Amino acid sequence: MSSPVRLGIIGLGNMGNSHAQQILQGKVPRMVLGAVCDTDPEKLKRCPDTPGFATHQELLKSGKVDAVLVATPHYDHTTIGIDAINAGVHTLIEKPLSVHKADCQKLIAAYEKRSRKDLVFAEMFNQRTDPRYRKLRELLQSGELGDIRRVNWIITDWYRTETYYASGGWRATWAGEGGGVLMNQCPHQLDLMQWMFGLPKKVRAHCQFGKWHDIEVEDACTAYLEYANGATGVFITTTGEAPGTNRLEVATDRGRVVVEGDGLQWTRTTQKVSEHLRTSPGAFGTPDRWEVKVPTNGWGGQHNEILGNFTEAILDGKALLGPAVEGIGGVELGNAMLMSSLWDRTVELPLDAAAVAAEYQKLIAKSRHKTKVVAAGAANDFANSAKGLAK
Amino acid sequence: MSSPVRLGIIGLGNMGNSHAQQILQGKVPRMVLGAVCDTDPEKLKRCPDTPGFATHQELLKSGKVDAVLVATPHYDHTTIGIDAINAGVHTLIEKPLSVHKADCQKLIAAYEKRSRKDLVFAEMFNQRTDPRYRKLRELLQSGELGDIRRVNWIITDWYRTETYYASGGWRATWAGEGGGVLMNQCPHQLDLMQWMFGLPKKVRAHCQFGKWHDIEVEDACTAYLEYANGATGVFITTTGEAPGTNRLEVATDRGRVVVEGDGLQWTRTTQKVSEHLRTSPGAFGTPDRWEVKVPTNGWGGQHNEILGNFTEAILDGKALLGPAVEGIGGVELGNAMLMSSLWDRTVELPLDAAAVAAEYQKLIAKSRHKTKVVAAGAANDFANSAKGLAK
Repeated sequence: MSSPVRLGIIGLGNMGNSHAQQILQGKVPRMVLGAVCDTDPEKLKRCPDTPGFATHQELLKSGKVDAVLVATPHYDHTTIGIDAINAGVHTLIEKPLSVHKADCQKLIAAYEKRSRKDLVFAEMFNQRTDPRYRKLRELLQSGELGDIRRVNWIITDWYRTETYYASGGWRATWAGEGGGVLMNQCPHQLDLMQWMFGLPKKVRAHCQFGKWHDIEVEDACTAYLEYANGATGVFITTTGEAPGTNRLEVATDRGRVVVEGDGLQWTRTTQKVSEHLRTSPGAFGTPDRWEVKVPTNGWGGQHNEILGNFTEAILDGKALLGPAVEGIGGVELGNAMLMSSLWDRTVELPLDAAAVAAEYQKLIAKSRHKTKVVAAGAANDFANSAKGLAK
Repeated sequence: MSSPVRLGIIGLGNMGNSHAQQILQGKVPRMVLGAVCDTDPEKLKRCPDTPGFATHQELLKSGKVDAVLVATPHYDHTTIGIDAINAGVHTLIEKPLSVHKADCQKLIAAYEKRSRKDLVFAEMFNQRTDPRYRKLRELLQSGELGDIRRVNWIITDWYRTETYYASGGWRATWAGEGGGVLMNQCPHQLDLMQWMFGLPKKVRAHCQFGKWHDIEVEDACTAYLEYANGATGVFITTTGEAPGTNRLEVATDRGRVVVEGDGLQWTRTTQKVSEHLRTSPGAFGTPDRWEVKVPTNGWGGQHNEILGNFTEAILDGKALLGPAVEGIGGVELGNAMLMSSLWDRTVELPLDAAAVAAEYQKLIAKSRHKTKVVAAGAANDFANSAKGLAK
């Protein structure tokens, strides 16, 4: 394909518009904004010099785009994503891939049946560009860290005010957004979890619904995880805490890595823990250890790096940082946490996708879906939030 | 009573002997070692110049002691403690108070029916002397920190080798010790949890039994807690990790306190989080905050401070740092974690003490209670471990 890639952005809400402005400012080499689409004519005015469409079907048929970015409310990721794939345009989906596993499967099935084999299908996994997580994954995959024994991620610096939840009528409702902190804020971490550690075999979670805010969905969750190798994990999140914490701790057979703030702090045992435990003649001693600071450089290119990688995949056949087909992992993990809470029991993975979808239908049926007042000034805040600063 | 207090130590194992040596070295003002007791004549040789008895009944009747310290295997804390109280001697019990709630109740009932009203009944809660936890409790009780929103204690620096577990035939068996990491290592943290935060209303825990070691009891546990005010908590422990972590994080309505290493790190919000969340006109902003380093001085007097406080309570009527009647709290919390795991469900507190006791009878009935080889040199390690270094 010839350069540049003409991107159509479907959904000019806060995230879609943020990406549009980056492209219009030339921040993504070899990518231009070909067209935009929003059902709200007011939103189209955000890109006054770009061809605008009221429906994604019109945009897809317009001949003005080689690729699309789907940045609509979550449920539409599935339907619009399928239409885009079937139209033969390269497709980048905002996170999450879909609300639940069955919808992810539909979307992936459409991609697998694509007529155009070179079609690029990506997801906006901007936090995969963060060098801290890339490095941790690399250390795990290389075997340098040995087997994982325990994982603990406290990710509670997603603080949101009532004003935030009042910024859109669809927000924080089962019918509109399809979930709360697990669906909106945590897809990054849920994806990183499965990307770095794989999916657990069992999940027992405790979500609280409207605990800190006047919303029907979960704004706090504590989940316990068990992996196939016996490792255990805890994942804790909420939008109700300030200052909040973002601290990932991984205990392995070679010590402990902590990711909090800048870089990785690795307390490295000079011997395998499992070997020392089994063979040491002393009752109390621990293996010798080194304090290793693993430097990393900044927070990565975030959203623009994903857009650039998507462009390179289209033009140069480069491998994707975030293939959309991998997006089902984080969705399934989040679904497992929600279902475990609703069903009040441990759930095993892989989940029964149909059972999860049926549960969502129940939630949607009883959704209050309140129309809320849009608070003045909130949009600017959203744009700032989308700048890709690592949380 | 006239000074000094003559203490009898019942059980001259690793802990009992460690305390005996401290007293013999004059480390506890106004306390002397009056007598010692052990069923093993070899152990009595550890205090060759002190009157020694083979049974606690003989020691209690000897007229050589005003007070006793019970440092026997755990199940005997109950029976010997009751005998000591009934004999009218001041009684200090090593942690845990008893193995399970019903035994605690029996011991406390004996104390409540005591004929001698000035009888002092204490527990060896040496970590209550740690100024970090005292300060945190003080900040919570004064209202300075506001309501607790979330608690997270990762206490995994209790690393133990197979050699440790081979050091005594009773160790790490249901029949002998009555549990694993929750019963032996964690009574400190379980007590501090209930001392600082109160007991939760609900517990859902996941213990692993013999996960890292060849033992029948739990050597790893992850527990989820829910408190009456809606706060949530996580408690994670194991003896299978190195280097392990000791990090207590408390999110409150006034920010977050982290106790890890020296002192307390308090990120203090200048406004109540609940108030900011409800009233802020912005969607993303967080309350302003201060980084507050709350200095504390060292790790406290630990075991010797408890012995000194016990002496002052006897001689001067001073309040106890660790009244034994409070010891039931941490035991109930640990019981709840174990029962939740065994019963594979959420348990509510207060626990049914009889149901817990019945479950212990089942565990004891199927206990392997292996006789293990005592490893050379392990005793010294135990003495060092008992020096009261804060973990």
